[in-house]
Amino acid sequence: MAANHRFEASAWSNVLVVMPPALNVASGDTVVTLTLDAAGADAEGHRRAARPNPMNGPIHVEGAEPGDALRVDILRVDPARDTGWTRAALSATVVDPEAARDLPPRDLADWRIDRAARTVRLETPEPGLEGLVLPLAPMIGCFGVAPSGGQAISTASSDRNGGNMDWRGFGPGCSVSFPVSAPGALFFLGDCHAVQGCGEISGTGVETSCEVEVRLSVEKGRAIGWPRGETADRIFTVGNARPLDQALQHATTEMAARLREEYGLSDAAVAHLLGQTVRYEVGNVYNPAYTMVCSVGKKWLPEPT
Amino acid sequence: MAANHRFEASAWSNVLVVMPPALNVASGDTVVTLTLDAAGADAEGHRRAARPNPMNGPIHVEGAEPGDALRVDILRVDPARDTGWTRAALSATVVDPEAARDLPPRDLADWRIDRAARTVRLETPEPGLEGLVLPLAPMIGCFGVAPSGGQAISTASSDRNGGNMDWRGFGPGCSVSFPVSAPGALFFLGDCHAVQGCGEISGTGVETSCEVEVRLSVEKGRAIGWPRGETADRIFTVGNARPLDQALQHATTEMAARLREEYGLSDAAVAHLLGQTVRYEVGNVYNPAYTMVCSVGKKWLPEPT
Amino acid sequence: MAANHRFEASAWSNVLVVMPPALNVASGDTVVTLTLDAAGADAEGHRRAARPNPMNGPIHVEGAEPGDALRVDILRVDPARDTGWTRAALSATVVDPEAARDLPPRDLADWRIDRAARTVRLETPEPGLEGLVLPLAPMIGCFGVAPSGGQAISTASSDRNGGNMDWRGFGPGCSVSFPVSAPGALFFLGDCHAVQGCGEISGTGVETSCEVEVRLSVEKGRAIGWPRGETADRIFTVGNARPLDQALQHATTEMAARLREEYGLSDAAVAHLLGQTVRYEVGNVYNPAYTMVCSVGKKWLPEPT
Amino acid sequence: MAANHRFEASAWSNVLVVMPPALNVASGDTVVTLTLDAAGADAEGHRRAARPNPMNGPIHVEGAEPGDALRVDILRVDPARDTGWTRAALSATVVDPEAARDLPPRDLADWRIDRAARTVRLETPEPGLEGLVLPLAPMIGCFGVAPSGGQAISTASSDRNGGNMDWRGFGPGCSVSFPVSAPGALFFLGDCHAVQGCGEISGTGVETSCEVEVRLSVEKGRAIGWPRGETADRIFTVGNARPLDQALQHATTEMAARLREEYGLSDAAVAHLLGQTVRYEVGNVYNPAYTMVCSVGKKWLPEPT
Repeated sequence: MAANHRFEASAWSNVLVVMPPALNVASGDTVVTLTLDAAGADAEGHRRAARPNPMNGPIHVEGAEPGDALRVDILRVDPARDTGWTRAALSATVVDPEAARDLPPRDLADWRIDRAARTVRLETPEPGLEGLVLPLAPMIGCFGVAPSGGQAISTASSDRNGGNMDWRGFGPGCSVSFPVSAPGALFFLGDCHAVQGCGEISGTGVETSCEVEVRLSVEKGRAIGWPRGETADRIFTVGNARPLDQALQHATTEMAARLREEYGLSDAAVAHLLGQTVRYEVGNVYNPAYTMVCSVGKKWLPEPT
Repeated sequence: MAANHRFEASAWSNVLVVMPPALNVASGDTVVTLTLDAAGADAEGHRRAARPNPMNGPIHVEGAEPGDALRVDILRVDPARDTGWTRAALSATVVDPEAARDLPPRDLADWRIDRAARTVRLETPEPGLEGLVLPLAPMIGCFGVAPSGGQAISTASSDRNGGNMDWRGFGPGCSVSFPVSAPGALFFLGDCHAVQGCGEISGTGVETSCEVEVRLSVEKGRAIGWPRGETADRIFTVGNARPLDQALQHATTEMAARLREEYGLSDAAVAHLLGQTVRYEVGNVYNPAYTMVCSVGKKWLPEPT
Repeated sequence: MAANHRFEASAWSNVLVVMPPALNVASGDTVVTLTLDAAGADAEGHRRAARPNPMNGPIHVEGAEPGDALRVDILRVDPARDTGWTRAALSATVVDPEAARDLPPRDLADWRIDRAARTVRLETPEPGLEGLVLPLAPMIGCFGVAPSGGQAISTASSDRNGGNMDWRGFGPGCSVSFPVSAPGALFFLGDCHAVQGCGEISGTGVETSCEVEVRLSVEKGRAIGWPRGETADRIFTVGNARPLDQALQHATTEMAARLREEYGLSDAAVAHLLGQTVRYEVGNVYNPAYTMVCSVGKKWLPEPT
Repeated sequence: MAANHRFEASAWSNVLVVMPPALNVASGDTVVTLTLDAAGADAEGHRRAARPNPMNGPIHVEGAEPGDALRVDILRVDPARDTGWTRAALSATVVDPEAARDLPPRDLADWRIDRAARTVRLETPEPGLEGLVLPLAPMIGCFGVAPSGGQAISTASSDRNGGNMDWRGFGPGCSVSFPVSAPGALFFLGDCHAVQGCGEISGTGVETSCEVEVRLSVEKGRAIGWPRGETADRIFTVGNARPLDQALQHATTEMAARLREEYGLSDAAVAHLLGQTVRYEVGNVYNPAYTMVCSVGKKWLPEPT
């Protein structure tokens, strides 16, 4: 019988790494936890940990071993306070090099999160944005498991094990599996956003503290190279690297492997299916590694093998 | 009173360039024309012109001058035959370099286009794809205007003036404006697809001959740097370059300029609006220049200035 | 018997393209011509043509046909005036994106070319550069032949046919062969620099007018994909593209082909030879296409086949 | 008085990370140590540690603190056995994507290292390479210090703290300083090559075990962002990232900072000096992060400030 854990973090990590777990759970258990924002502030706005993107965790999931995958079902992401913040300038990584000369200062801006109305708006709108009231669309910016080979990967970046991917699709209803490299998988999460455009191109979503509920399940023997996930109607893979071309290559190569392994398709079938139906979505294009998500509609897939 | 032209091409170009027009129209006129497929075959499957992507045109639009934009409203794209073709292998540009060693041969595959049912399917499905019947979603792969400075840009590639962008959004209901560099703008089009995934990652959509109807309108004094367009509910900009990061930079820089120029937003307002609402879509990642489309929902925009 | 031509240009092109030749020569003839600087100024400093990089030519070389190569021996590059100019800021393409915010304005700076002493120095040195007196090392920034397929390629960029490569190795004693796509090859040249670092990273070398002497020879049936050249002790290939990774891929793939075709090496031998002896040099990293030069010492090569 | 340490490693690391030191030395001491080859084989050819690139160390240097630099003078790199090995295929990262389909298998090849004659040659030369006898040019492929922020960086990759840079310039006579992030700096080294071309483009140099002698010196208060070094006649900086463009950006930005900080140059002076004299050399273009070295001749520099 699956247990429900409330996990109150008292220490946070700025790397994803093999380290002593803060919590032990069984496969299939759910965990509710309160995350800090990207700068380390909690639900009351108190600074509790250091930048970048302090992580709750790690959570040890019994039975997870290298060669397995850890499936994370995102059940709920709810802002835990009424305020968020962003940067007021585009990142220099997303404009033409010469145009970077003219970017404004990277000032902080405050946002109001109306949890009842489920909306997000600037505290002091710039002229022209007075009417900009966005629907709350909370998501997890940074999560994943301990990487392989003794690596410790900064929560500013991302890799095969997940990390700071900042894809707006990582909200409730999305499930994603990470390749396990350490006993217990060692799951970390944090850096939630109340809302965010593609790419996190101002260097932030609306950064805030959130209460997150996830279910953690071991997928025995599901050997994967990069994150593989699904939503109600699509399956997806994630590639993390720079340039974006390489992130796209990783995501596409992983999707091709998934279609061969899990759906029994030939290389030619993979080419036909992806060639005419694939969709890409852009995750982080701000931090060291960029993120690209490759997806296919479930309605186009044969039965899994 | 706008005229409706039926334009029967008898010569085709493999570059976008200043050359004698094949047709003269007034601003606001509509043109219906039959395009060849990417390999030069017509509606009867007869080879009429050479690869790559032979273009109908150019069409001279009266009154268009350098410093203006040419607006192209895509009114209709209808397959003109019951067959299309694709490649049966992913492009080596979209998989990990070492994985390219294992790609299958780039064989041709035939597709059946059911114009009544508005569906597309493989003639001889690979195992697992027997049920793959895709909705017809026709689009223009390659179109644009004569480039600046005496350049002649191959229809395999793309640049500020448009070209081989292969974005699946270039279907009916989409309008796009190109920067005019030559008197009359000199509009070219061709390379239509019955359906296509993002990125044209097998190197083809379902390549076929189409009957296309467009309205061509001069936007006097609308000086733009890259294609700017709109659909029913979004505005977008297009960047063409490699790597994809640079295409994204061009598209984002052009969108920022558009929001400043056409909606009066400050740089900080641009950062807030795009940072939390922008969407990116991947066009061609197969040909020399890659394509990225940057868009914003109209509902988030202030009144145009 | 080879003729020596003095070619006085009276019109200049800003694209490499098939166009009526300004001069006809036989294979093996030499040509002496005076080039304009990148901004179009002549030996007297008078503006004669428009930016970017106006080209003398094209020169039609008898007997050159598609499938041949045109060999260009650079015999002499001599500054034709005592002044040159540069930009006083690094290009935003060569610094970290966020660092581009702090670049100084792209002011012009004047340089003194001492043709007797064969030195180059700033007219008004910045503090710390009072002693900077560089040896004259003149080179051709932009040259090549008409491209294939009806393309017209801006002299700001480069491609398989050459163009604005800005490699400091293109000085006297260097020979380079371009793939011929048009009858007569149609050779263009211009944009000489009195001296230049790798990469042209301030966007200019010391830009000046030069008297250039080249020998133009048809290499019948030498089908090449990218420029191939040699110096006294090395053979080299050139790749032009962005990002630099892709330029390196083109240059390396062409070198591998050259070693197979011209020296009879197997793929494994190519890997051994290049793996342990290859050298790369960075050409232009400022303009749309970047340039990478791949070279091998002649002393490591077997006899040509 | 500087001590000379002979350091016999008995454990090896595949990450650069903060960990208990294997040796403590004073600033200015020299260390002699025997490295394993990239696959973990020692001077007798016995496998002692796991791939990739097992490191000797870390060596704790007294007095080194975050904000300092650790200067490493490479005094000697001598092969410790008569054999080395390479791969017999180019890396798929350095050829055109479609050309990767045709690469040969990545077989191992054996090389003979003649330590008396100081030459390196294939045990069984491919046809055409019978005469390929290369001068021994030993270098350190992978070295550096513990990275910042709790990161552990794989010895397959590289970053601000050094790592697997595979620059052929890292041989005797070269000195390089790494930014210190941990008390004692924690210096690691290994992965030496008997000889190597630029880029390590077959994925290996001639991999062997070497006896290396280095002097380790703390540079108090020399706060640097990326490795900075010097040879007899040049100063250099190193950038590590992918794509190569970004590695070049890091190296150039660091060189500009160095010229401002250490030589008192203005931004305009930096642009003039680098624009007309800079040289780039390509390090690793095989592993996750690529390496670019940016250098300037000492003869062009003013007195250090």
